[in-house]
Amino acid sequence: MVLYFHLMEMFDDNYFMKQALVEAQKAYEAEEVPVGAVVVIDNKIIARAHNLTECLNDVTAHAEMQAITSASHFLNGKYLSDCSLYVTLEPCVMCIGAIYWSQIGKIVFGAEDKKRGFQQAQLEAHPKATVYGGIMAEDATALLRDFFRNKRT
Amino acid sequence: MVLYFHLMEMFDDNYFMKQALVEAQKAYEAEEVPVGAVVVIDNKIIARAHNLTECLNDVTAHAEMQAITSASHFLNGKYLSDCSLYVTLEPCVMCIGAIYWSQIGKIVFGAEDKKRGFQQAQLEAHPKATVYGGIMAEDATALLRDFFRNKRT
Repeated sequence: MVLYFHLMEMFDDNYFMKQALVEAQKAYEAEEVPVGAVVVIDNKIIARAHNLTECLNDVTAHAEMQAITSASHFLNGKYLSDCSLYVTLEPCVMCIGAIYWSQIGKIVFGAEDKKRGFQQAQLEAHPKATVYGGIMAEDATALLRDFFRNKRT
Repeated sequence: MVLYFHLMEMFDDNYFMKQALVEAQKAYEAEEVPVGAVVVIDNKIIARAHNLTECLNDVTAHAEMQAITSASHFLNGKYLSDCSLYVTLEPCVMCIGAIYWSQIGKIVFGAEDKKRGFQQAQLEAHPKATVYGGIMAEDATALLRDFFRNKRT
């Protein structure tokens, strides 16, 4: 029983967001805008991805898009209603559109994106989905701030 | 001069939309929701794609998404400002988001999508982009209508 509660505590939103931040760090090191994502089902990570738009020369290669494709391959099904997506930055219009189609059940994001986030565009996730924002937002923001500061200098 | 005008006439929006419809027909034959797209630069088609969401088990595999990725690979650059996108159905939220990031200069679509189209979501293309809707809409609609009618029976 103690172990059970311990595991419940271990696999919380912060745990999986930390994994998304590990992905964001990989993007940072590859000189990509540092955004990372993981897809989780039954407390297991089934997809990891980070932004690769520069490396792939492809605007569609956001972390979330790759994570959705990857999770769908893993599950051999295109609907992800039993999955949770953890992403370090608020999804953009493109990504919230993909999230909608995938029917992901739970979306947890870190920092808000006041310029290009889906909230600013007045969009919403699938009506059946739950959305939590601001999870470990400071870590995600610090990484992004560092990235753009280094770019300017 | 006569030849010049003839070519100008030949490579009009209808010409390229017909090519997008050829792609939509391929989707139809593969039992995919029949939507097709082409990307054009200097009157040359540099990318062709059709919806592959069923075949790839991937909600992100809309015709436009693949066409953008493919055109970016061809040009070895992620911005498509000198390109035109022809797509048989009004882009959805995901696709208009990708179209925005790609900075595609001209978007021509066929049939309107009153349920899931970007217009219904009150989204707009990139401010520098021009958008034309309703080009050969009847052909695109006929294909979609046939597809869904066959699915039901």
